[in-house]
Amino acid sequence: MAQNIYDIPEFFSAYSQIPRQVHGLAGAPEWPRVQAMLPDLNNLRVVDLGCGFGWFSRWARENGAASALGIDLSENMIARARAGTADPMIEYRIADLEALVLPENSFDLAYSALAFHYVQDFGRLVRTIQRSLVAGGWLVFTIEHPILMAAAHPRWWADEDGRKTWPVNQYSVEGDRRTDWFAKGVLKYHRTMGTTLNTLIEAGFTIRHVEEFAPSAQQVQENPALAEEIERPMFLLISAQA
Amino acid sequence: MAQNIYDIPEFFSAYSQIPRQVHGLAGAPEWPRVQAMLPDLNNLRVVDLGCGFGWFSRWARENGAASALGIDLSENMIARARAGTADPMIEYRIADLEALVLPENSFDLAYSALAFHYVQDFGRLVRTIQRSLVAGGWLVFTIEHPILMAAAHPRWWADEDGRKTWPVNQYSVEGDRRTDWFAKGVLKYHRTMGTTLNTLIEAGFTIRHVEEFAPSAQQVQENPALAEEIERPMFLLISAQA
Repeated sequence: MAQNIYDIPEFFSAYSQIPRQVHGLAGAPEWPRVQAMLPDLNNLRVVDLGCGFGWFSRWARENGAASALGIDLSENMIARARAGTADPMIEYRIADLEALVLPENSFDLAYSALAFHYVQDFGRLVRTIQRSLVAGGWLVFTIEHPILMAAAHPRWWADEDGRKTWPVNQYSVEGDRRTDWFAKGVLKYHRTMGTTLNTLIEAGFTIRHVEEFAPSAQQVQENPALAEEIERPMFLLISAQA
Repeated sequence: MAQNIYDIPEFFSAYSQIPRQVHGLAGAPEWPRVQAMLPDLNNLRVVDLGCGFGWFSRWARENGAASALGIDLSENMIARARAGTADPMIEYRIADLEALVLPENSFDLAYSALAFHYVQDFGRLVRTIQRSLVAGGWLVFTIEHPILMAAAHPRWWADEDGRKTWPVNQYSVEGDRRTDWFAKGVLKYHRTMGTTLNTLIEAGFTIRHVEEFAPSAQQVQENPALAEEIERPMFLLISAQA
């Protein structure tokens, strides 16, 4: 079973305050780029893997989706998601992505934001998603970028000119990475870009777009703290078709 | 026109001594992985872009290719390549990849080793290759990995544990990178992984395999200097089909 940090009360309380939870999709700087990678949602059956507070499922329904199923490991998250809607075509369900079971040939779009790097058996998950999609169905997801995750001590350094610089080591050593983020020892799984892409391809997906998030000039102007994201990619955005 | 460092006598002399030039394909540690990404060469018409001394064209013919065309900017390289074979089905030609013209629908495999990062207009090149391939034809190529190329000062650091660590900055700032490698100010073009992959996809290619070269345990045992390549990827290997 995946580590469930979200049901640790202190974690949940702090996590609930970050901009992307308070402001929903628009609180995530990468959202405009993710949105540009999504198909037209009209009449699509959507599944959101690691749905958190359920923002995406509600947004999908508001934008024409026929139905939305949000799945999350955390009881706290699912309780909050359920409290946020009375839409009968949205369902929120507690489940572990490590052991996910989905009906076959039943969805047109699988979406996931910043959840898959918590999953150890990515191959199993991707094959499960592939079977759950109709032919031509879309998988659009974001994960922490392997450049961000690889190093033993991932933190900003300064180079000889004083420029913000990110360290990379043990890049090809895949597996556990533990960091402190609102809780001690949050467990994530590092995979190379190659492994992530080849796992999709081997499961039968066709890669449609790969983006390493960098803020726009306007985003940096509005929020100067984002400038450092130009130095190294924080998130990896991928779209693929079954 | 691309910078032609290979016809600077001092550069050419030093470059001719590196293992992959002295020993050919087997002198390159990534070659076994590249070879695993190639289609069966039997009866294929092959073009090798940035052919250098022509090793790959000769190997392709020895492994069943119907013909091989090797292209390189450097007169020195092409002279050496021509001197290395009397095979009438191998042709070596001087041309600049920035302005490459190829006959349409004429090749089954386009191959390139460590040349495309010298090319500024990657989109033009990829579209030219795509048109030159038959439907289902293969493009298999290697480039320097963007993690290797991005930083303003690309050199090994030590992290707080003394571990070899590679710096990344200005990752999303694409364009010129100048380094000293046998010659001063060798000009290369940094592109993100996303840009490289999306350029292929937008030109009509389907991505088949993406590999970030890391040496095997056996390679490290035989050549301990390769161990550092585990810390950060040096080369990016891609196969795609038209």
